[in-house]
Amino acid sequence: MKILLELAYCGSAYHGWQVQGDALTVQKILQDACEQLFGYRPPVTGCSRTDSGVHAKQFFCTAEGVFSVPVDRIPAALNTLLPEDVSVLDAREVSLDFHARYSCTGKEYFYDICISRYRDPLTVGRAWQYCRPLDVKRMNQAAQYLCGKHDFASFCAAGSSVIDTVRTVSALTAEQAGDHILVRISADGFLYNMVRIIVGTLVEVGRGAMPPEQAERILYAADRSKAGPTAPACGLYLNRVFYS
Amino acid sequence: MKILLELAYCGSAYHGWQVQGDALTVQKILQDACEQLFGYRPPVTGCSRTDSGVHAKQFFCTAEGVFSVPVDRIPAALNTLLPEDVSVLDAREVSLDFHARYSCTGKEYFYDICISRYRDPLTVGRAWQYCRPLDVKRMNQAAQYLCGKHDFASFCAAGSSVIDTVRTVSALTAEQAGDHILVRISADGFLYNMVRIIVGTLVEVGRGAMPPEQAERILYAADRSKAGPTAPACGLYLNRVFYS
Repeated sequence: MKILLELAYCGSAYHGWQVQGDALTVQKILQDACEQLFGYRPPVTGCSRTDSGVHAKQFFCTAEGVFSVPVDRIPAALNTLLPEDVSVLDAREVSLDFHARYSCTGKEYFYDICISRYRDPLTVGRAWQYCRPLDVKRMNQAAQYLCGKHDFASFCAAGSSVIDTVRTVSALTAEQAGDHILVRISADGFLYNMVRIIVGTLVEVGRGAMPPEQAERILYAADRSKAGPTAPACGLYLNRVFYS
Repeated sequence: MKILLELAYCGSAYHGWQVQGDALTVQKILQDACEQLFGYRPPVTGCSRTDSGVHAKQFFCTAEGVFSVPVDRIPAALNTLLPEDVSVLDAREVSLDFHARYSCTGKEYFYDICISRYRDPLTVGRAWQYCRPLDVKRMNQAAQYLCGKHDFASFCAAGSSVIDTVRTVSALTAEQAGDHILVRISADGFLYNMVRIIVGTLVEVGRGAMPPEQAERILYAADRSKAGPTAPACGLYLNRVFYS
């Protein structure tokens, strides 16, 4: 049978989701816990490859095999075996043709920027400690150019092997709450480092180094070097994953 | 001269504020940074002795001595020498008779309880992972009995040497936001473990193990054993410190 696990994790200690050699990854930690619980290592497929240091409020993966524990008790059983920075929130059976990644119809990320004058020790590793004021209105003006169906090649890390760089961004907003600016973005799919490059670009606009309209010119250039820097991983959260 | 430093810190790695032998404390870390910056170890007095694992969004301490750096540049200078989980937010000169602890007229704490079914990996160490529902209305009913000027002997850790256990609680509320319940409490002063015992008691009421009116009976008993358990340190934040 195939089960769909809903996870949440703090990514600070992990080299992202995907198993890569001996590096500590969330996939490895989960497979270790599965091996302890079920006596073997089921194949596990994630909905996304989050980067090193990126967090997830919601992340889905499937596991395939024969499970000796009733599905509704799997979360509690795995949680006793997982470290405190990874949790299983839900488990349910899915059909064998369900694919954690390819069945996904969209995702929502948010990015947390802390703009207090000095770093906030309670959000270090959880937010970009930017420590300078940003103009949220300008950031939202720039964001409007990026909403809709566009070629996001300028917002894709150099070296990515993806050929089709067209994606549809259904929402992109920046909102200030106290000393934090939260950037929210939803799309049908994301290119490698796309959210972090978009945030890095919006921050360039917010600090006055770029006019908001430049976001449109960057899009049309289809050239990574025209966009802003890649924002640090620690502020990025995969927030929701959509399946039809 | 005497300077007043405003700090914030994540208490997870520290045995509280106060220097105790070789234990890692926030006071020790701050004095280490001062020694590096000024070439000697100025005496430092805090506004409160926070417990091991307790956090501070705002904490004040004074330092006395001759400072070779202009006061307005001290925060940035100390922050480069402090670990990421401690920040200096402000520095200003105060009169020599100002006392970080005795000049304080009141404090506000908040306590964060996470009630999601499974632990939230993003707030582990930052909130009490209670993982069961709580009735916030009942918690607020109980809280009303504790507001005002009362003898809080029942809400003081056994073994405390304080003689006068009368304090005035000016506000005590519980509020739910998503999967979190935030308990806020302001008072002119706090007994040892007072907030954590009050929260532990409100949780007993919230889960249905005590009627709200019992809070009043606990107050009158002036007996620690009548109150609820001491809530874990990790959910507690010193939020604001008041000086006249």
